[in-house]
Amino acid sequence: MSTIDLNSDIGESFGAWSMGDDEAILDVVTSANIACGFHAGDPSHMRATAEGAARRGVSVGAHVAYRDLAGFGRRFVDATATELADDVLYQIGALEAMARAAGTRVTYVKPHGALYNTIVDHEVHARAVVDAVGAFGGGLSLLLLPGSLALRLAEQAGTEGVAEAFADRAYNPDGTLVSRREPGAVLHDPQIVAARMVRLATEGVLEAVDGTLIRPDARSICLHGDTAGAVALSRAVRSGLEAAGVQIASFT
Amino acid sequence: MSTIDLNSDIGESFGAWSMGDDEAILDVVTSANIACGFHAGDPSHMRATAEGAARRGVSVGAHVAYRDLAGFGRRFVDATATELADDVLYQIGALEAMARAAGTRVTYVKPHGALYNTIVDHEVHARAVVDAVGAFGGGLSLLLLPGSLALRLAEQAGTEGVAEAFADRAYNPDGTLVSRREPGAVLHDPQIVAARMVRLATEGVLEAVDGTLIRPDARSICLHGDTAGAVALSRAVRSGLEAAGVQIASFT
Amino acid sequence: MSTIDLNSDIGESFGAWSMGDDEAILDVVTSANIACGFHAGDPSHMRATAEGAARRGVSVGAHVAYRDLAGFGRRFVDATATELADDVLYQIGALEAMARAAGTRVTYVKPHGALYNTIVDHEVHARAVVDAVGAFGGGLSLLLLPGSLALRLAEQAGTEGVAEAFADRAYNPDGTLVSRREPGAVLHDPQIVAARMVRLATEGVLEAVDGTLIRPDARSICLHGDTAGAVALSRAVRSGLEAAGVQIASFT
Amino acid sequence: MSTIDLNSDIGESFGAWSMGDDEAILDVVTSANIACGFHAGDPSHMRATAEGAARRGVSVGAHVAYRDLAGFGRRFVDATATELADDVLYQIGALEAMARAAGTRVTYVKPHGALYNTIVDHEVHARAVVDAVGAFGGGLSLLLLPGSLALRLAEQAGTEGVAEAFADRAYNPDGTLVSRREPGAVLHDPQIVAARMVRLATEGVLEAVDGTLIRPDARSICLHGDTAGAVALSRAVRSGLEAAGVQIASFT
Repeated sequence: MSTIDLNSDIGESFGAWSMGDDEAILDVVTSANIACGFHAGDPSHMRATAEGAARRGVSVGAHVAYRDLAGFGRRFVDATATELADDVLYQIGALEAMARAAGTRVTYVKPHGALYNTIVDHEVHARAVVDAVGAFGGGLSLLLLPGSLALRLAEQAGTEGVAEAFADRAYNPDGTLVSRREPGAVLHDPQIVAARMVRLATEGVLEAVDGTLIRPDARSICLHGDTAGAVALSRAVRSGLEAAGVQIASFT
Repeated sequence: MSTIDLNSDIGESFGAWSMGDDEAILDVVTSANIACGFHAGDPSHMRATAEGAARRGVSVGAHVAYRDLAGFGRRFVDATATELADDVLYQIGALEAMARAAGTRVTYVKPHGALYNTIVDHEVHARAVVDAVGAFGGGLSLLLLPGSLALRLAEQAGTEGVAEAFADRAYNPDGTLVSRREPGAVLHDPQIVAARMVRLATEGVLEAVDGTLIRPDARSICLHGDTAGAVALSRAVRSGLEAAGVQIASFT
Repeated sequence: MSTIDLNSDIGESFGAWSMGDDEAILDVVTSANIACGFHAGDPSHMRATAEGAARRGVSVGAHVAYRDLAGFGRRFVDATATELADDVLYQIGALEAMARAAGTRVTYVKPHGALYNTIVDHEVHARAVVDAVGAFGGGLSLLLLPGSLALRLAEQAGTEGVAEAFADRAYNPDGTLVSRREPGAVLHDPQIVAARMVRLATEGVLEAVDGTLIRPDARSICLHGDTAGAVALSRAVRSGLEAAGVQIASFT
Repeated sequence: MSTIDLNSDIGESFGAWSMGDDEAILDVVTSANIACGFHAGDPSHMRATAEGAARRGVSVGAHVAYRDLAGFGRRFVDATATELADDVLYQIGALEAMARAAGTRVTYVKPHGALYNTIVDHEVHARAVVDAVGAFGGGLSLLLLPGSLALRLAEQAGTEGVAEAFADRAYNPDGTLVSRREPGAVLHDPQIVAARMVRLATEGVLEAVDGTLIRPDARSICLHGDTAGAVALSRAVRSGLEAAGVQIASFT
């Protein structure tokens, strides 16, 4: 029987500003990537989100980012290795306190935005993230893009790396994502998306834009909850997987 | 044989800005109140300071503050109970990650600046701090002014409260500190200060400005390391205590 | 013929977070209180909002606040007079640059949130705001609650003070607002609100909760644009005033 | 008779943290690059620094930076063109308010740290800075590295570009600075530095590390005031220039 994890970025509100329908998406996923205050997420939203995850038995992950509230962590920041490692460690610890207060623990780390993309090939930053996860201890996993340099460095360092696929994104034949600037980069049809994810979970394959079958080796599927359409699509993926007999469970 | 703890606020540098001679004061104290990023202290300074403390066997405390980097935490911020509790919890967790990376743990919390003074009598904020310490768990102590409302609330909540005396401050006969606006509020003579602290450690008494003997019930002495004079005075206190046969040890 | 100004707080988005329907409310008001980055509003949202105001001939006001992004400026911060005056001056200047780039100028200042409420009776902060407005020069007006201490200090300092009424709020017989904690504090019926504002603009009176007629001496009406209902209510006020032959124009 | 400007970065304290001997260096320079709050400089330090400059007839320049307080603006931030232009405009406006309050005006802009270095060849960011200066209006000049792309774009946009030389840095034969990682990159001998700057001011030439004479076409010399040695060296440069009959005056 096949098993797959469903993850989503949540807790991205900040102070008076809301973002995303966290309650709705928490009902769908098995892993919650919770913002830790550097790109989004103030302490009270972090704690409330951790409590929401704990109540549902959803795994808590630290969605760590560059220190860039104004840019929502979408901008590369040329931090030194030490600065970045310590910023990541700080964020993990802050979320761990919230998780403890909610009766759970942080079990994995997923870098956000520019940091996620940068460590696909930026060795200094990839190593800094891996070092921070190791320094925190406790056996955290690292959730990343398949093929990310950080994934390989994690494995060398004895940290479990987990690759993810994106439910609503089209793929190139080489396994990379079709750029958002290209038409068709983002998929909107819940039935098509659900069917793709069922095939990924059961056969391990995903059809690229040219029909090529790729094998992303993903143990988790990234869903979105920031719009009503995204929530509906996420629910469709979960329903489709359940109907196909796929076991939906956290990778941790 | 008498025992007393020596504590000091450290790790108050931020980014490119330095503050205090942390290495020097770490050689004197047994408890280090490390800034957690809300009034001072960025992740890299926090980690380096935690490592410096761990190397010397100095206890690590979370020097938590209102979110006020521009005001160095010296300004009251009228946060809600929830906001404040979660801000405090966040800071403790962030420092705990640094402590773990340094091979040690956070063992106590000391509120900083305006927060320290506010919770002497502000029930909502006092309770928020106590709640945060409880929510973090792990049996942290709370280091405070004798007579602080937060001390009483801590005890009610099952959290150990520890009172401290200020080495370089004059006291009123009612046990409060002489206001810094009054002449003679701050003591500068190392010999006088050391003698006062020896008496406090061995007899439990401190002479107020009018000669009255007060009993602050302090298990820790707060020292400063922010100027060369402060470091010298701190060393004099330690030497005086050692010469008097007082055991200097962390309260945790 | 009666004349009245309509003002609203806008430009309160920050980075990736949106707040309010700025385009809709800009079509209704004659004065735009634009957030300046301390409680909300990043430089790009400030500039876009100033451009939107300039295009419509809407007056640009600096919606200055305590430095408190996490608390949205709703929390009192016990800043010194110097800190507060300089923070206010900084915000005015930053918005002035955006206004210049948009082909207009800042013509007034309206304190936001906790600062607005504090300077009703906090002399140090009221004076700091008035001092900052004077230091900036250029004859800016100050938009405030009727009876605010800052209004009196402004007049003493030669700064024009302008009082405002709140369209959607119930009033006590002494002219103060009914607390939001009381039932009926916020009015929702567009027709009732519009009728109240017409009476205010034409007769200068407003009916308090007990039927007493009060005279707030307001030259501006504060509207909201943060919800669909608020925008509809704001439009109803404008339509009602126009239908009653009231001239709607900025006070500057 | 030769004329040259002397500039220095000042006002880089923030809140409780001090940096540099601003009073001393203000006595030496003719142009003060004042930090605007994004990498350093809070509103009160900005205002006090602008007042210190105004008192001495020193020109006030906006030392604008990426939004990066934790990194002191030394880290490249991959902002969009719009974000960067608006951030720069915001900073200029904020400082202009301080300058007005001090009885003077901002007359030029000098980018700081990573932004200064980035716009030597990063077209998007170079153009954003030039656009912001143009949007502010008022005929501000832009102070930059000779050969900087931003200098050329400024000239195309009708903004005066002014190039500067670094008093305490060694130069490569191609006119670039010797990297700080190389031995001899930073010059320390006041007499040698002063002599080099006299030659630059009077003959327009500077000797590179291999003896080649280069012509940086600099109308300003950058000095430092962050250490006692830097202040002494800066004074030596000024004395040397005066003794050589060079007129020292702001370029604006």
